[in-house]
Amino acid sequence: MADNKKAVVHVRLKDGVLDPQGVTIQKALVQMGYDDILAVRSGRFFEMEIKADAADIDRKIDEVCSRLLANPVIEEFQVETPN
Amino acid sequence: MADNKKAVVHVRLKDGVLDPQGVTIQKALVQMGYDDILAVRSGRFFEMEIKADAADIDRKIDEVCSRLLANPVIEEFQVETPN
Repeated sequence: MADNKKAVVHVRLKDGVLDPQGVTIQKALVQMGYDDILAVRSGRFFEMEIKADAADIDRKIDEVCSRLLANPVIEEFQVETPN
Repeated sequence: MADNKKAVVHVRLKDGVLDPQGVTIQKALVQMGYDDILAVRSGRFFEMEIKADAADIDRKIDEVCSRLLANPVIEEFQVETPN
C-alpha cells in the first residue's frame, strides 16, 4: 500500500499589503531590546495529508487555497509537494 | 555595504497537541467535496529582516521565538537562515 502524500501550503500577504501583526511584533521586539530585527512579515502555513491514490491533486490544492485557505485579493499562496 | 540578512521562523503545534483550526479546515474541505485531504495541521511563519552587522543572531532569534513568537509549552519552532 502506498503512503499518503503530503503537501505544504504557505499563505502570505502580497507585497505592499500592510501586515499589522508583523509591524506589532517588530515594535515589541525593539522594546524588548532586539533592535537588530528591522522588519517582520507574518504568514500562515498548512500541512496536508492526502490520499495516496488521489487524482489531479495539484489542481485540487490550488482550488482549496483560492477558495478556503487564502484571500486572493490580498494574499498569495505557494504549494510544496515534497513527494 | 552588506545586504540585510533574512530568517524564516516556522511555529507549529507539537505532535499530539490538538489543532482545532486544522480539524475545522479539514471538515470544511470534506463538505466542499475535497475528501482526498485526510488531515490538515496549521501553523504560522514569520519572515524577518535582520541588520547585516548583527552579532550572535542565531541565539537572538531562538530567544525571540521562545519569548514572543511561540508558546514553548505547546508549540515548537524551526529557524531557517537562507544566507
